Amino acid sequence: MPFVRNAWYVAGWSRDFGAEIRALTIVDQTLAMFRAGDGTLVALEDRCPHRQLPLSKGKRIGDTIQCGYHGMTFDRTGACVRVPGQDNLPASAYVDAFPVEERHGIVWVWMGDPDRADPATIFDLPEFSDPAWHLHHGDALHLRANYLNVAENLVDPAHVSFVHPTTLGSSASENVPVHVSTKGKTITAWRWIRNAPPVGFFQKFGGFTGNVDRWHYYHLYLPSTAVIDFGSADAALNLPEDERQKGVRIFALHFVTPVTEDYTIDHWMHIRNAAVGDDAASAQMDAMFRIAFAEDKEILEAIHIEEQRPHKRKPIRIAIDKGPNVFRKRIRDLIEAEATEDLGEPVRSTFVQHD
Amino acid sequence: MPFVRNAWYVAGWSRDFGAEIRALTIVDQTLAMFRAGDGTLVALEDRCPHRQLPLSKGKRIGDTIQCGYHGMTFDRTGACVRVPGQDNLPASAYVDAFPVEERHGIVWVWMGDPDRADPATIFDLPEFSDPAWHLHHGDALHLRANYLNVAENLVDPAHVSFVHPTTLGSSASENVPVHVSTKGKTITAWRWIRNAPPVGFFQKFGGFTGNVDRWHYYHLYLPSTAVIDFGSADAALNLPEDERQKGVRIFALHFVTPVTEDYTIDHWMHIRNAAVGDDAASAQMDAMFRIAFAEDKEILEAIHIEEQRPHKRKPIRIAIDKGPNVFRKRIRDLIEAEATEDLGEPVRSTFVQHD
Amino acid sequence: MPFVRNAWYVAGWSRDFGAEIRALTIVDQTLAMFRAGDGTLVALEDRCPHRQLPLSKGKRIGDTIQCGYHGMTFDRTGACVRVPGQDNLPASAYVDAFPVEERHGIVWVWMGDPDRADPATIFDLPEFSDPAWHLHHGDALHLRANYLNVAENLVDPAHVSFVHPTTLGSSASENVPVHVSTKGKTITAWRWIRNAPPVGFFQKFGGFTGNVDRWHYYHLYLPSTAVIDFGSADAALNLPEDERQKGVRIFALHFVTPVTEDYTIDHWMHIRNAAVGDDAASAQMDAMFRIAFAEDKEILEAIHIEEQRPHKRKPIRIAIDKGPNVFRKRIRDLIEAEATEDLGEPVRSTFVQHD
Repeated sequence: MPFVRNAWYVAGWSRDFGAEIRALTIVDQTLAMFRAGDGTLVALEDRCPHRQLPLSKGKRIGDTIQCGYHGMTFDRTGACVRVPGQDNLPASAYVDAFPVEERHGIVWVWMGDPDRADPATIFDLPEFSDPAWHLHHGDALHLRANYLNVAENLVDPAHVSFVHPTTLGSSASENVPVHVSTKGKTITAWRWIRNAPPVGFFQKFGGFTGNVDRWHYYHLYLPSTAVIDFGSADAALNLPEDERQKGVRIFALHFVTPVTEDYTIDHWMHIRNAAVGDDAASAQMDAMFRIAFAEDKEILEAIHIEEQRPHKRKPIRIAIDKGPNVFRKRIRDLIEAEATEDLGEPVRSTFVQHD
Repeated sequence: MPFVRNAWYVAGWSRDFGAEIRALTIVDQTLAMFRAGDGTLVALEDRCPHRQLPLSKGKRIGDTIQCGYHGMTFDRTGACVRVPGQDNLPASAYVDAFPVEERHGIVWVWMGDPDRADPATIFDLPEFSDPAWHLHHGDALHLRANYLNVAENLVDPAHVSFVHPTTLGSSASENVPVHVSTKGKTITAWRWIRNAPPVGFFQKFGGFTGNVDRWHYYHLYLPSTAVIDFGSADAALNLPEDERQKGVRIFALHFVTPVTEDYTIDHWMHIRNAAVGDDAASAQMDAMFRIAFAEDKEILEAIHIEEQRPHKRKPIRIAIDKGPNVFRKRIRDLIEAEATEDLGEPVRSTFVQHD
Repeated sequence: MPFVRNAWYVAGWSRDFGAEIRALTIVDQTLAMFRAGDGTLVALEDRCPHRQLPLSKGKRIGDTIQCGYHGMTFDRTGACVRVPGQDNLPASAYVDAFPVEERHGIVWVWMGDPDRADPATIFDLPEFSDPAWHLHHGDALHLRANYLNVAENLVDPAHVSFVHPTTLGSSASENVPVHVSTKGKTITAWRWIRNAPPVGFFQKFGGFTGNVDRWHYYHLYLPSTAVIDFGSADAALNLPEDERQKGVRIFALHFVTPVTEDYTIDHWMHIRNAAVGDDAASAQMDAMFRIAFAEDKEILEAIHIEEQRPHKRKPIRIAIDKGPNVFRKRIRDLIEAEATEDLGEPVRSTFVQHD
């Protein structure tokens, strides 16, 4: 079992779901999802228990799905409400239903034991609903890569200098050490690059011309939600670490959804404390993010191919790997805990230490 | 061994075979087939015993095939008649030859023990050569699906209401129970839908405007030949079950050929007791069948993909599955009998109870 | 281990390599190759030991490669010279480096134990640098086939009559026996076809109109370099076997490089004792070779597919197989010797007996 199941994963943006049945896969579980008549979302196991046809090949009858092969019909709880050709409904005629929640235009599905699904544990940020911040939903990046590598990349500030030299990084940061700390379910890796020329992003966006102080705080909320708090401020201000709000500050969000062991979808968006209400700025940032994420995709897919090949030696770990190492250890622990059913208390969001 | 081998399978229509060598695969056995100088068909194992080149990559020299690599040459019985560069012909230099028969424009190959091949057991219908019936060869439907699912679909009247709502089925039949009987090597599943509006097919073809009685008799001749006797008659006639000949009656024929475990070809055709000699009617029916069979293909290929995925639960069976259940049981028995070499008597055609 | 590793294999033509890093695979080992500042070639294991990104996704910094993910940097010996974010260089931070040599526009890489790499054992011919001979580098033929089948084809004169009837062979040679001898690391299969019409190649190229004596000497230098010495002379001359230089004589060279077990690249070229300096003749011969090699490719790829299918019987061997049989036996012995580490002395080129 290579996935954490007792977790909320992002299935898509609210705008992605309507009356039509949509098929998708999360942690190797296929889902048939649709928006019911009352506007709420339904997620059912996408396989008819009779002849295994995906229910997403069927059609909606009200808030039920009628299988496209023999018409067995399931309501939004997964219960079978009709078996054509017979009057009784066998006890084994059901599909699993998965809890779904929507927050700030983001759709979350709980992939584990439904009794443990607690909407209060869904990832949230006060800034989502703070008018001083601008929220911009991005897109979904599809990667032929394992989700651990995708998520690891998001608690790894060191790659930015080499993978994103024209947008998010520069050679000034190549040798700056990375700090790592953990708090509850969050792992944070961060570093400041003081008094260096602005990187491409802040040349275009912040309008900086002289040297700046630049920070990266990579918060990874287990299992796989990342918030990258990054920004720049005029170097002359010599900004203290806890006064980042005074600079141009962006939270780049990544909701990493394992599809299969070989495929991952990263729903990405950002919120920012500058250019609030400025759609042109949103479009400009969106375009820069796309350049950077295409660079990540190329790296991560090449690694995925390479990891399938035979190995003569174990990979080595170096100083900058502290964040990834902690992340992998925590994931292994969570998976093992689920396997042994010693799941403890559901995880409550403690993602509030980004100031 | 997932296939019944001691059986006649359809390799194609007579029109598909000429002087040119044609490569095809039946029950995972590759064949090189051609029409010999005297017009009869030859089917040889499509692999040279020397360096394994398919013989179909070679060329005909008279009624022999000369391998395209080193010129080893095999006659229509599979015997090697030439090894270039040496005078003796090794005993191991041969390929298997498979019995082939043609009937009514259909080409049959016996895939099992040649000593058991009895042309008298080839599927036949008196109507094939009855001038009161019109015969129309259709086409070959290729499916990325296991043949058992394809054949099962042809002893399953219940799917028609849901898979083919615009052509062969309608909601009127959704809850009508299915009867099943067996006789010799034939399994029959049937039902009548009395006094209902005509389905799309009989609106276009039978010219019915008022309500009709409609029947479906799905005869499945083991291992995988299906005859679907379906038709409609004015409901006012209240047609007895054994007087179907008085209505507009069609036999839709399906010759299901397992290619591999993951690929199946369904050669389909029909014969009918109406519009005899009317080629426009043939074309119209052909077009409607293509719509319906594309619907089956979509369902069956989606199921095939789903069956490759891990299963948490066993599929459930419901009342309408009686025909498919009997069919699968009989196939399992045949395969097991072949595996234990307790094959008993060759199967004689008993497919005559369709009246 | 299906490959001989202690051998020089051809990576490409000199013209294929420049400053840019090029990724390729030999005997299932991925390589990152580039031409260093001093013009010499470098071949490194194409996998960063840190996070497994192929180094070929990185970039050159002088004569080093900087990994594209976190900037670990390796020099041309494979030693790590930089780990960003830390001062020490771990002992495990290295990649393998492979000896590379260039000769006559051909690039060779030693894929085995570097201590055994002896440039003196690289395949060579005196004619390469003889002004009486014209050298023409051809191309690289990619085949979805195992290298043993590709190489075997090059010590097999008997296939020419059947695979290349319009260019290199004719029916006159179909039954002419093949002689085989071995000397050191070279296996030679040959035959003469005396007093027969010229084959297509020598009609176009040699300008012969009457009958000719034609020879084929297939020299296979282990593990997989082939020289096919073929030519024609006026039959009236009744040319002795050791006076081939008096006829129109061509050495068709094939450097067969195993990429994986399922993929092989054949770098092919020719040298000839006629039409020296005549580029139009080179182009004409090149075009005829391409026709012939496309024929080989079709055969060899069909065999490769067939070899993956289940077999009921072992392939048979016939008289013309003597060359291939000896070749396969020698390769098996070499691989077994490497496996048992009883490698003996490195192989010295003894490829001089082609006169």
